[in-house]
Amino acid sequence: MKYFVLGSTYVIRLDAGERIVETVKSLCERDAIGGGYFYGLGAVGEAEIGHFDPGSNAYSWTRMPGPSEIVSLYGNITTVDGKPFIHAHIALGDRAFAVRGGHLKDAVVSASCEITLVRFRDDIGRKKDAATGLMRLALEPGED
Amino acid sequence: MKYFVLGSTYVIRLDAGERIVETVKSLCERDAIGGGYFYGLGAVGEAEIGHFDPGSNAYSWTRMPGPSEIVSLYGNITTVDGKPFIHAHIALGDRAFAVRGGHLKDAVVSASCEITLVRFRDDIGRKKDAATGLMRLALEPGED
Amino acid sequence: MKYFVLGSTYVIRLDAGERIVETVKSLCERDAIGGGYFYGLGAVGEAEIGHFDPGSNAYSWTRMPGPSEIVSLYGNITTVDGKPFIHAHIALGDRAFAVRGGHLKDAVVSASCEITLVRFRDDIGRKKDAATGLMRLALEPGED
Repeated sequence: MKYFVLGSTYVIRLDAGERIVETVKSLCERDAIGGGYFYGLGAVGEAEIGHFDPGSNAYSWTRMPGPSEIVSLYGNITTVDGKPFIHAHIALGDRAFAVRGGHLKDAVVSASCEITLVRFRDDIGRKKDAATGLMRLALEPGED
Repeated sequence: MKYFVLGSTYVIRLDAGERIVETVKSLCERDAIGGGYFYGLGAVGEAEIGHFDPGSNAYSWTRMPGPSEIVSLYGNITTVDGKPFIHAHIALGDRAFAVRGGHLKDAVVSASCEITLVRFRDDIGRKKDAATGLMRLALEPGED
Repeated sequence: MKYFVLGSTYVIRLDAGERIVETVKSLCERDAIGGGYFYGLGAVGEAEIGHFDPGSNAYSWTRMPGPSEIVSLYGNITTVDGKPFIHAHIALGDRAFAVRGGHLKDAVVSASCEITLVRFRDDIGRKKDAATGLMRLALEPGED
């Protein structure tokens, strides 16, 4: 990973073999980024994405072997127990240009991945929602 | 809906049962946001999306029952007759991770929807385009 | 193309017949924008998109006749040899709401295309990567 900082914006390049979620998280840990969002494009090999079923409050997962284009990638940065937490969704396109997508668990960069990340001055916390088990944005007074 | 304001950026959480377009619009009305853009992710139940046919200058619509992941969501905020107007497109992923998408008319949040909204200081107007009947961005002098 | 500038943000409208990549590039050339990113929505007719195969280090291409909704569009702006360079990925939805996507080579606006572009004060360069032949973000000291 290489990056360039312009005010509150990071321009980030991930190279072949780097994992998107893990790498963005490690940058946030290093620079103490506890709130923000990011977008990206590029190409990945193996990826794992999920779909949430509100009936069972559980994710189902699939692995895609790639090679895939990152057709879209958007995520936000928050904190859980004071540590950076990445929540991102992705759309991936295959050789036939068909697109599959969902909640991004993990994806390994093949050629390159280019990300624009905007950091906030403040941290945004998450707190476990009792009903669904999901880590929900803590935006109410006293919630984070 | 809960939200947190950081300068010109809103971090917004929509909860189960809330409608995305209607809720963002009501926030814009309350805070007098007449220009801006937003991104989101999360999960929805029933949604209605459209496809514009420039041949007939008409939208065709479909309803998707969900549950769907919001694979991507991007919209802009403008004004029509002085009132906030939301224009958003969405990609939705089903259980099999297949993605369908188009112009977002309406979508009901199932688990959660997390939005980052950036507001402008200025309003951006729209004006009806005589040829297509669409509400076009009014960016020419004297057009809004 | 019409646009409105708010600080470092451009709100841009492309009209029927305008080409997305070429038009954004010409705006960047005119206003000397050498770093930034953009998002968009709208509708296009004919489009050409690519998929990169890291095995052969080559793109395969397809033409889509449209009419298509721009389900998502994200790109970044950099410079190559001092001139603006556009790198964008797109998801396009057809009449049946099926989504195909990849690297955007070219797309002709049908009804309208609405873009939010954020420019950086600094330029971000690219440099050819010997291994893949791709123009890689030059973020290392002395690389741009």
